[in-house]
Amino acid sequence: MDNTIYLDNNATTPVAPEVREAMMPFLDRLYGNPSSIHTFGGQVKAHVDKARQRLADLVGCHPTEIIFTSCGTESDNTAITSALDCYPERRHLITTRVEHPGVKNLCQALGQGGRGRPLYRVTEIPVDAEGLLDVAAFEDALDDSTAVVSVMWANNETGVLFPVETVGALCRDRGVLFHTDAIQAVGKIPMDLADLPIDMLSLSGHKLHAPKGIGALYVRRGTRFSPHIIGGHQESNRRGGTESVPLIVALGKAAELAKQNLHKENTEVAALRDRLENDLLEKAPDAHVNGSREQRLPNTTNISFEYVEGEAILLMLDQHGICASSGSACTTGSLEPSHVLRAMGVPFTAAHGSIRFSLSIYNTREEIDKVLEVVPPIIQRLRQISPFGHDKAPAKSKA
Amino acid sequence: MDNTIYLDNNATTPVAPEVREAMMPFLDRLYGNPSSIHTFGGQVKAHVDKARQRLADLVGCHPTEIIFTSCGTESDNTAITSALDCYPERRHLITTRVEHPGVKNLCQALGQGGRGRPLYRVTEIPVDAEGLLDVAAFEDALDDSTAVVSVMWANNETGVLFPVETVGALCRDRGVLFHTDAIQAVGKIPMDLADLPIDMLSLSGHKLHAPKGIGALYVRRGTRFSPHIIGGHQESNRRGGTESVPLIVALGKAAELAKQNLHKENTEVAALRDRLENDLLEKAPDAHVNGSREQRLPNTTNISFEYVEGEAILLMLDQHGICASSGSACTTGSLEPSHVLRAMGVPFTAAHGSIRFSLSIYNTREEIDKVLEVVPPIIQRLRQISPFGHDKAPAKSKA
Repeated sequence: MDNTIYLDNNATTPVAPEVREAMMPFLDRLYGNPSSIHTFGGQVKAHVDKARQRLADLVGCHPTEIIFTSCGTESDNTAITSALDCYPERRHLITTRVEHPGVKNLCQALGQGGRGRPLYRVTEIPVDAEGLLDVAAFEDALDDSTAVVSVMWANNETGVLFPVETVGALCRDRGVLFHTDAIQAVGKIPMDLADLPIDMLSLSGHKLHAPKGIGALYVRRGTRFSPHIIGGHQESNRRGGTESVPLIVALGKAAELAKQNLHKENTEVAALRDRLENDLLEKAPDAHVNGSREQRLPNTTNISFEYVEGEAILLMLDQHGICASSGSACTTGSLEPSHVLRAMGVPFTAAHGSIRFSLSIYNTREEIDKVLEVVPPIIQRLRQISPFGHDKAPAKSKA
Repeated sequence: MDNTIYLDNNATTPVAPEVREAMMPFLDRLYGNPSSIHTFGGQVKAHVDKARQRLADLVGCHPTEIIFTSCGTESDNTAITSALDCYPERRHLITTRVEHPGVKNLCQALGQGGRGRPLYRVTEIPVDAEGLLDVAAFEDALDDSTAVVSVMWANNETGVLFPVETVGALCRDRGVLFHTDAIQAVGKIPMDLADLPIDMLSLSGHKLHAPKGIGALYVRRGTRFSPHIIGGHQESNRRGGTESVPLIVALGKAAELAKQNLHKENTEVAALRDRLENDLLEKAPDAHVNGSREQRLPNTTNISFEYVEGEAILLMLDQHGICASSGSACTTGSLEPSHVLRAMGVPFTAAHGSIRFSLSIYNTREEIDKVLEVVPPIIQRLRQISPFGHDKAPAKSKA
């Protein structure tokens, strides 16, 4: 395991050692319930407050605007259903064709009706060949019946960034709530929510070196809100259930570290990613980057290697201890090509041979060198045995 | 902290050392996403499966009937809204007057309408002076318009057990879904779901020595189901969001331990609780137990000390490092007396002076001795200064 080269950080990240250390007392002697009246429980509450402040500092908001949840998907679901609950007379949702399943599958379910809710009209805004949002189409779709707009900040598969400021401003003009799934963006690019026209924002701990099982939803002060999980008074009556203290503390620490590492993420990590990308494009013919290379997260590259199967590449990388992905981990098991690449019009043969490499501050130059050494021969070998690749390089033998 | 005597285990429990140890690798090198295609992620999935099996073994069901959630409240919300989604033509809910906020507050919200859902008629079944369910009233309330019955297995404040087998059988006769909030019951009393007419059951990890932030919902095979959190394919499409691997592993280990400790819980823990209860009743006049002493969890006693304020007792106990509670931690901060005791018709003066002691396998005879030494003088002192107690013992001085 120690030789693993982990380039799948958009799926999940290693827990930072500082994060692990910060949460340990709360798995041990500080096990009190923050809602308890006794000192033993009450003292824990201060640590929850501190974590909330740290997370608020990362995204540039007030701590009362943060609601802790169990994951990014819960945050997405909460934001969207809250808007529907608060604006019951509006029966239209706008999202994009390239959202994460946490938004996409919920919106599709709402568009089919029957879940004890009225039927919603759902508009999925298209993207262009570079994966960039069709803002004109968005403007056309927005109307007075729109209950909520949910447009992701950064795409999980390509890293492409959407113009959330523009989208948010258009929403505000029309008096429509704007939610952004920023699960891939938080901790990778700077953000200052106080200055942005964003009403709700989802984030996830395990994408920024906290453990799996914790997320948060930012809800701008003054935004109408209706909880998705109703129970006790926790999170100021906005999310029932005993606070997951160890994971909340972990997320707070991870947020503090992410803020400190933001510069490194956008310089060193970006440079490693660029080196990986440029060298692969140079060494492997018929390879190209999916998505805009300008409007993009610093850590992500999605490369299509024509005429080969992405899963075959992944399996061979796996034998070398290199972890990468062919798309979202949340859609693994599906044989269909990525809905993101399809929405961009990437041809079938290229979409099937796409690999996402997603880096973190823990990756090293040596690791990237190793990947650059290993990948080109894998591609060459697979093309030799590919039914699509026979005209590129005649098959010599079957692996 | 090491001298703390923790008798608030119905609020939350210490994490078992074995549980902490079991989850540690998943906060460290085993950080892969179980949905990832690479070996690094995939190997984690086997540990999630093992945890599911351990939990299934504790409650007597098949592992595919277990859905991991983030907490008991999420489980409660999921069960109830699932039933409403699956039986949209039925507009009636049955619950009790003494449920935990995770059920009670959701049902009340549904009874008020407006949350993007139709208006529901909600029947809250009363309890008697011992806290026992009025089964005849329940039978009368059940009809063909009932979408779901949600009746807790064990009350969190008094420990009183409800006849879930009887309630479930009546539901089955009428073709109505039966959910039970068993958050306080799981791990404290034996259960074999394969043999019980229960369709859905909620449980929570932090009530049985796992950390806060993990729960589960049992859904009997063949039960119609609609997810509360929609996203990726996780939990067999029944709960979106990346699996909280460290906490799932923790819950699995906690379930294994709980099964091993079930006998101890019902012998040694029950004996300690009985000793505490009997001696307190003997040493403190005008004290009595709230709720049936027969139909009750082995670890809980809820005692009313007449003419004193429960919160004052708790504060004085706190000074001795003794943690207890005046009711549910989820309703702390409210100045109203417990809705559970009110439903039982406990008089105002007694309800205000009620203290819940809830034990675990980690409590010792020495701790109980200390509590028995400390509590009676506290009660005596408080009665001396109580405005309600002047006719019992004249006030001498103000503390």
